[in-house]
Amino acid sequence: MEVEESPAAPGEEVIGNDKTSADYYFDSYSHFGIHEEMLKDVVRTRSYQNVITQNNFLFKDKIVLDVGAGTGILSLFCAKAGAKHVYAIECSQMADMAKEIVKTNGFSEVITVIKGKVEEIELPVPKVDVIISEWMGYFLLFENMLDTVLFARDKWLADDGVVLPDKASLHLTAIEDAEYKEDKIEFWNNVYGFDMSCIKKQAMMEPLVDTVDQNQIVTNCQLLKIGLNPFVYLICVFQTMDISKMSSGDASFTVPFKLVAERNDFIHALVAYFNVSFTKCHKLMGFSTGPRSKSTHWKQTVLYLEDVVTICEGETLSGSMTVANNKKNPRDIDITLKYAINGNRCKVSRTQHYKMR
Amino acid sequence: MEVEESPAAPGEEVIGNDKTSADYYFDSYSHFGIHEEMLKDVVRTRSYQNVITQNNFLFKDKIVLDVGAGTGILSLFCAKAGAKHVYAIECSQMADMAKEIVKTNGFSEVITVIKGKVEEIELPVPKVDVIISEWMGYFLLFENMLDTVLFARDKWLADDGVVLPDKASLHLTAIEDAEYKEDKIEFWNNVYGFDMSCIKKQAMMEPLVDTVDQNQIVTNCQLLKIGLNPFVYLICVFQTMDISKMSSGDASFTVPFKLVAERNDFIHALVAYFNVSFTKCHKLMGFSTGPRSKSTHWKQTVLYLEDVVTICEGETLSGSMTVANNKKNPRDIDITLKYAINGNRCKVSRTQHYKMR
Repeated sequence: MEVEESPAAPGEEVIGNDKTSADYYFDSYSHFGIHEEMLKDVVRTRSYQNVITQNNFLFKDKIVLDVGAGTGILSLFCAKAGAKHVYAIECSQMADMAKEIVKTNGFSEVITVIKGKVEEIELPVPKVDVIISEWMGYFLLFENMLDTVLFARDKWLADDGVVLPDKASLHLTAIEDAEYKEDKIEFWNNVYGFDMSCIKKQAMMEPLVDTVDQNQIVTNCQLLKIGLNPFVYLICVFQTMDISKMSSGDASFTVPFKLVAERNDFIHALVAYFNVSFTKCHKLMGFSTGPRSKSTHWKQTVLYLEDVVTICEGETLSGSMTVANNKKNPRDIDITLKYAINGNRCKVSRTQHYKMR
Repeated sequence: MEVEESPAAPGEEVIGNDKTSADYYFDSYSHFGIHEEMLKDVVRTRSYQNVITQNNFLFKDKIVLDVGAGTGILSLFCAKAGAKHVYAIECSQMADMAKEIVKTNGFSEVITVIKGKVEEIELPVPKVDVIISEWMGYFLLFENMLDTVLFARDKWLADDGVVLPDKASLHLTAIEDAEYKEDKIEFWNNVYGFDMSCIKKQAMMEPLVDTVDQNQIVTNCQLLKIGLNPFVYLICVFQTMDISKMSSGDASFTVPFKLVAERNDFIHALVAYFNVSFTKCHKLMGFSTGPRSKSTHWKQTVLYLEDVVTICEGETLSGSMTVANNKKNPRDIDITLKYAINGNRCKVSRTQHYKMR
């Protein structure tokens, strides 16, 4: 069941006769390198493996749908855990490898790899008992694959079915980062004696995906909670979103934050990261991609501030973060950050724009 | 002088109505990240800086052409060294930044940034005295930008003009690499208990760009010399190619090699790297990207062997390497490696194919 070329979905930039920006997105998953990186992320892959192998009751004799199967690793875990049948949907060329891997490992009878887009393929069954997916991108929402999982849930999940993982949350903290900001941002002020500060403006606007040392953390870490928001699901998103219940929609939202300093220090950047959990297991399972946890391939997302904020213990850096899918390429994310501090040593109020691409 | 969309050149894969594989190549240079990496490669950038600033006589009152100018850094060095005028050609969006950088640094009168393809733009002058370019790709020839430099030379270089750099050479050696081969290649044999060896076949076929420890070197390092070859310029390529004289053409060639073991060891891979030199300077200048030199962003190019070769001191691993531009995407490289050893402990003869993309 292979899906041939198809018209662009709404919001997809049409690049040529038959390729859209989405095709280039899927092309990036055709190379084995990205799968090697994900498989070798043991926090990620071992978490899924443990969830599946230690909770056979969720899979035994069940129909499972694996959304964005890649090499098929999660499908294989599910098959081994006793699933009745697993449908593994993968749009990139890696689907051909997944088919071969399934065959090589003797699971052809249990796993059916379907090459195509979730939004376009047909399943041979009307309903599934379990939807499993590793859909999380940088900053949780980059790549916007969550919508695809929600599409699959709404179309195929049985009334008493489960989505794995079923909870995810976005967190924010503030860090001291003088040395690295100097290297990544101020660098452009003087490049072999020349002023390239126009590139610095670009560098400032792009969230930096990198590993943050937990000793850099200056404030508390806050679970982002949504304030006024027209979208039902987003209320869920930021007081831990419930993937089994939330509704799909445009991921445009504004969340307020208040970060309280735990020591006297400078703040150079805000750092976002996410946690994921599987609450349907015998015991609560999950993982964090925060700077205090073992590092993952998602690292953290660093948003540099225009100002170097001087903050004293107990003082508050407050503001709001607005996140929206980019209109031109919906897998990209536009972020607007408002922050303010009215402290003893520093009074600042500023709005900054970022683009994750 | 901006070049609008243009038809695909011969050999370019047409991806859509108005974008070719070349457009995606240039897009990759639109992001500042790649320029940051190249600028921070001090072996690369300091070498060019030293060549230019320590040899003013090459630039003083001369007309200079900078092929693939990027941020314009080389043009700025040349302007500072007293060039009469510098034409900086850059096809990617980075050209807009280069224009702003030139202006910010007060060189608008001396440097003209031209956004467009070298093969398509027009220069306001009939001839130039100097062509400077940093055209080298991984494995020296990846990205195939040398042809663009040769095109510019043939079209615009004055009879007594100079090309910088004017010499480049490709080198080959053999390494012991048990640990990393295990991690990068054998990994696919057992991924969380599953056999993914079909991906191993892909991984074997792709030259790995990575930094090799000089202690891994088992044999001598050989400057590749060309044997039978129909292309005049390739005779130059591999007994150090002379960029000021060689002719342009399809970079398809076969070079023989003989690597002599300097100790008893295993050989897991062949490693290619290149050297570049500027022979028109007061004294010979240049740099090496080999494993015995300070590492650069080009690292080295590792070709894993199917066999683990056991070699004794003094024994020879011989063979040939055939390099050709990929027919579908001429910036990609197809490599065929033939190797044989008839040693005391190991007798092997094999042909392997690689694809660099």
